[in-house]
Amino acid sequence: MSDEKNTRVSMLGLGAMGSVMAAAVIEAGYQTVVWNRTPGKADGLAARGAVAAGSVREAVAADVVIACLYDAASVRETLDPVVEELSGRTLINVTTTSPDQAREIAAWAAGHGIAYLDGGIMAVPAMIGQPGSSILYSGSAAVFEQHRPLLDLWGESVYFGDDAGLASLYDLALLSGMYVMFAGFMHGAAMVAPAGVSAGAFAERASAWIAAMTGSLGGLAAVIDGGDYTIAGQQSLEFSSLDDIVAASAAQGISTEVIDVVQNLIQRQIDAGHGEEAFPRIIESIKHPV
Amino acid sequence: MSDEKNTRVSMLGLGAMGSVMAAAVIEAGYQTVVWNRTPGKADGLAARGAVAAGSVREAVAADVVIACLYDAASVRETLDPVVEELSGRTLINVTTTSPDQAREIAAWAAGHGIAYLDGGIMAVPAMIGQPGSSILYSGSAAVFEQHRPLLDLWGESVYFGDDAGLASLYDLALLSGMYVMFAGFMHGAAMVAPAGVSAGAFAERASAWIAAMTGSLGGLAAVIDGGDYTIAGQQSLEFSSLDDIVAASAAQGISTEVIDVVQNLIQRQIDAGHGEEAFPRIIESIKHPV
Ligand SMILES: NC(=O)c1ccc[n+]([C@@H]2O[C@H](COP(=O)([O-])OP(=O)(O)OC[C@H]3O[C@@H](n4cnc5c(N)ncnc54)[C@H](OP(=O)(O)O)[C@@H]3O)[C@@H](O)[C@H]2O)c1
Ligand SMILES: NC(=O)c1ccc[n+]([C@@H]2O[C@H](COP(=O)([O-])OP(=O)(O)OC[C@H]3O[C@@H](n4cnc5c(N)ncnc54)[C@H](OP(=O)(O)O)[C@@H]3O)[C@@H](O)[C@H]2O)c1
Repeated sequence: MSDEKNTRVSMLGLGAMGSVMAAAVIEAGYQTVVWNRTPGKADGLAARGAVAAGSVREAVAADVVIACLYDAASVRETLDPVVEELSGRTLINVTTTSPDQAREIAAWAAGHGIAYLDGGIMAVPAMIGQPGSSILYSGSAAVFEQHRPLLDLWGESVYFGDDAGLASLYDLALLSGMYVMFAGFMHGAAMVAPAGVSAGAFAERASAWIAAMTGSLGGLAAVIDGGDYTIAGQQSLEFSSLDDIVAASAAQGISTEVIDVVQNLIQRQIDAGHGEEAFPRIIESIKHPV
Repeated sequence: MSDEKNTRVSMLGLGAMGSVMAAAVIEAGYQTVVWNRTPGKADGLAARGAVAAGSVREAVAADVVIACLYDAASVRETLDPVVEELSGRTLINVTTTSPDQAREIAAWAAGHGIAYLDGGIMAVPAMIGQPGSSILYSGSAAVFEQHRPLLDLWGESVYFGDDAGLASLYDLALLSGMYVMFAGFMHGAAMVAPAGVSAGAFAERASAWIAAMTGSLGGLAAVIDGGDYTIAGQQSLEFSSLDDIVAASAAQGISTEVIDVVQNLIQRQIDAGHGEEAFPRIIESIKHPV
């Protein structure tokens, strides 16, 4: 730890997220350098003990450079001009990017002798360093191992593998799960609304119910990974028909598109002759677009 | 309680669900009568102390008649021939029906002087009487109040109101939330699969993440109930664009339909000029079909 605390950490980007992450690093006693494109944002952090770098070049002269910028383009725009200075150092990029953009930045880093770890932040700024915050990483395992105490300041640190695009892919996959779950909640709330049920009253039951039902995901996944959808003891696709939900939704005068999409995944498998097979087979409808 | 235990309870339908519900009633010490269309299914329960009725007419001569049959049609088919016997008694129907079917059965019951409570079972048979089991009720408040100790044998009993269709509507709305959440999980699992991530490995993180995110539903609902989507401090629809998730999904070679449906809900609100407003406004896309 004392070695680790002598690490000079630089934070590039002091927006809503970067400033909170930098504050956690300062609080933990690291030598912290901060930089932001638009001046002024470093002042509060400097007052707490950070060194405000006058230029990107000055900022990247650190043991570990953290980039928490807007997008992949802003990362390249910021770092390309100082790539020689960055060469031989370590870059941890927690800026949100696509998997392919993360891989491109990783290739660029490799081409310039920069050790690269890509991160995807599964938290809002207020959650940083609090329970429930997690940051997903992929790329250099050595960087992840060496700087684990630093990374752990922000939340649970999870490493997925060498492929720098993996953390971002996981991040987007988890966000998909969240947004689609939100849409399912909205559909349910819209169904009961015409009966005079407030969204809040519905949320009270729905949040507990949906949270409880996430307990089934491991079992659904085991069927998928087992590779045999004819396995006994599973709810069949035929039995999972959502016709009654679609009809009840339509009877409430609301759009059925949200529930239709699930019914379509089920129906395509039934149409292909798999009606007797297990419900988790709907993933095949997603994996193999028509 | 001793009055309640003198209640003669009849269970019609001894399938997977009815037999477990009947067993709970017997265990609790009620005088229990059981009946099933196809003979033989009552034998085990009779050995545990139930009276196996020889006919539906005999079975409905009870203080409380519970119907746990296949569907609405089987309820009417079973009870229509004995409606005079049922008149003046209490019917609790936990058979899955649509909201409109529940209302039709309620009207039929009212027309024959039968006190009617409709129920929707949010559990599988193994959960009956266990934590996590809940049964949603609507219809006669008096029946719900009077027979609460009986109902509570099966799980948490929740009453929604006079409208007999409400429990079923809630049931279907909650199931919608579950099935759509499952589809979101499947989408995420399909996204990471080409990178060699098993569904099980994804489920380990996704179940915790999605469960945690159900904690946001109350907040989203409060914005909807507040009726002002321009309220400050909310993630905007513009900011919620799922273009990056759609693109990353397409890049993985999978169907984008599941995430597209959410993106469409968002986009319709943006197109209507509400891009700066709060994310929960997507419910308006569902409430007002195009
Ligand atoms: N906030 C969240 O809840 C959250 C959650 C998960 C992930 N993230 C990700 O974290 C990253 C930062 O988010 P944030 O909330 O801190 O965003 P933000 O408040 O908008 O800050 C953006 C930062 O990027 C800088 N920047 C933008 N374009 C730049 C460019 N071309 N060159 C140099 N710097 C540039 C901005 O500098 P100026 O001050 O000069 O504009 C600012 O420091 C994003 O990738 C975001 O997706 C955020
Ligand atoms: N099992 C679950 O996980 C679950 C969960 C929630 C809700 N439910 C609901 O609970 C109800 C019962 O489900 P279950 O799992 O017990 O189903 P099940 O095992 O298939 O049993 C169906 C029952 O209905 C009877 N039945 C069918 N058609 C009939 C007719 N025309 N006349 C008289 N009786 C008839 C069957 O009698 P025979 O033996 O003569 O065929 C049997 O007793 C259904 O509405 C179901 O949707 C079940």
